[in-house]
Amino acid sequence: MSRESVTHEQGAIYEFAPEMDPTATVEPGTELTIETRDSLDGAVQADSDVIEEIPEEVNAATGPIAVDGASPGDVLEIEIEEIRVVEPAGRVITIDGFGLLDGQPRIEAPESRMTPIEDGRLSFEGIDVPIDPVIGTIGVAPAEESYTTLVPHDHGGNLDTTDMTAGHTAYFPVFQEGALFAMGDCKAAMADGEMCGTGSEVATEIDLTVDVVETDVQLERPLVETPEAWKTIASAETIETACELANRDVIELLATEHDLSTTEAYMLSSLVGGLEISQVVDPLVTARNAIPKAYLSDPL
Amino acid sequence: MSRESVTHEQGAIYEFAPEMDPTATVEPGTELTIETRDSLDGAVQADSDVIEEIPEEVNAATGPIAVDGASPGDVLEIEIEEIRVVEPAGRVITIDGFGLLDGQPRIEAPESRMTPIEDGRLSFEGIDVPIDPVIGTIGVAPAEESYTTLVPHDHGGNLDTTDMTAGHTAYFPVFQEGALFAMGDCKAAMADGEMCGTGSEVATEIDLTVDVVETDVQLERPLVETPEAWKTIASAETIETACELANRDVIELLATEHDLSTTEAYMLSSLVGGLEISQVVDPLVTARNAIPKAYLSDPL
Repeated sequence: MSRESVTHEQGAIYEFAPEMDPTATVEPGTELTIETRDSLDGAVQADSDVIEEIPEEVNAATGPIAVDGASPGDVLEIEIEEIRVVEPAGRVITIDGFGLLDGQPRIEAPESRMTPIEDGRLSFEGIDVPIDPVIGTIGVAPAEESYTTLVPHDHGGNLDTTDMTAGHTAYFPVFQEGALFAMGDCKAAMADGEMCGTGSEVATEIDLTVDVVETDVQLERPLVETPEAWKTIASAETIETACELANRDVIELLATEHDLSTTEAYMLSSLVGGLEISQVVDPLVTARNAIPKAYLSDPL
Repeated sequence: MSRESVTHEQGAIYEFAPEMDPTATVEPGTELTIETRDSLDGAVQADSDVIEEIPEEVNAATGPIAVDGASPGDVLEIEIEEIRVVEPAGRVITIDGFGLLDGQPRIEAPESRMTPIEDGRLSFEGIDVPIDPVIGTIGVAPAEESYTTLVPHDHGGNLDTTDMTAGHTAYFPVFQEGALFAMGDCKAAMADGEMCGTGSEVATEIDLTVDVVETDVQLERPLVETPEAWKTIASAETIETACELANRDVIELLATEHDLSTTEAYMLSSLVGGLEISQVVDPLVTARNAIPKAYLSDPL
């Protein structure tokens, strides 16, 4: 099967809704290349281009793409093979009213800095940083409510999670027929936390393979598989609540794999791997709970 | 200089106070072995030994140890060389009213599980886990208030941070003459987050070298150096606030090293390294902000 392509010109969304018209429909097992815009739709091309307030439409997600046969209760599998930066620079910005240190002394907003990218490295004010591209917004059609592409929730969305990167596989609950996945808002580099509110926002091409997993596991939220670990991902009003959800999800998986009581699985989760921060800046914040594969072999 | 030894029989504290009588006084550069009890003072020796409520005295910290010449404004350096488990088992417990998922369905408290330890591995309900000992409580005499050894704050204390491990170096602000450091509450293994409220609590011997750094940097909170990164550490009422403090501290260091504005340092912090969770269960919670050494070479 040759690789199919979906471009942002074919379709992009600014809201994950339960009902959406697919831009494309593919078979399970399809290899795709998905082209994505930068999160600001190209509005920042120089340090002097500043963003006064969060645009009403931000984080364009290319899609949605329907997967034939994906039904509620299934799990959508997206194997991320490569994320190629397709413009000569990304940009990192501050916006008034947004970011971990928003409003604190000596934090100026709005400000923008272009980060030229060449040979797999970006330059921030002359500081050389190897790029490690990340998909910021990735998700499926939600169960009931709609979420703008600025918000992360159980459907995925604006997860801003560094593990959404090449060589990792993302899993999402299927809430609607065809799953209807979309993605965009890539960063050439991003810290865990995304403190100032952005990474180096950049347009990309993403090579991936999409598949459908039929499983008895009732996946409620996104999950990501790295070479070393399985990580549950949860978004909530506070990091504490996100940690609670991510930990609850991990405990279910550990209890099943090792035939432990819930309390014992909780204790095991307190010994191995641990909680990680995805982002602390979006309208809901996101945490994950990583379990090394030695303790969680194949949770689906 | 031969290695000096300080045992918990010589002295241990359950509160970090501004004024404390030192158990021992050492010169800068002294190599020490510090013996520590388990956090529960040996109360749990079998699965049937449960802890109904958090004891009034918990996390005994061996010390305090005065360092000759350490004065307010200096930085205390503790190079952690080795942490040896000195009993045949640790224990992981739940206590009613404590832990990330306290009170949630199917989470039973109090419960205890012994974790036998042999040849560098522990066994939790038959599951084999390599040990990676961590110092849970480590700190110095605070500036003004006193803190029980259950509480982490700017002086350190119950940081429950996995980076307090062999091969890493911890730095603390010196608030009082002699610094007056103490440590205990070690775990044979612990997850980032310490979700159930403990790791595998265990008695240890810690080999370390203590020194005093004279620096122009006004260190406000603990800092830890790993082989790969420098990490600021902050404790607060919420993880969000702890993240803010840890990020502010990182930004100061980045701005100084790279001659950046505060806003630019904030942007750089949003591109490299990132926020990490130490623990989400103590009376104050703890986060850290890691910056790879490529971007922060020698902040002190």
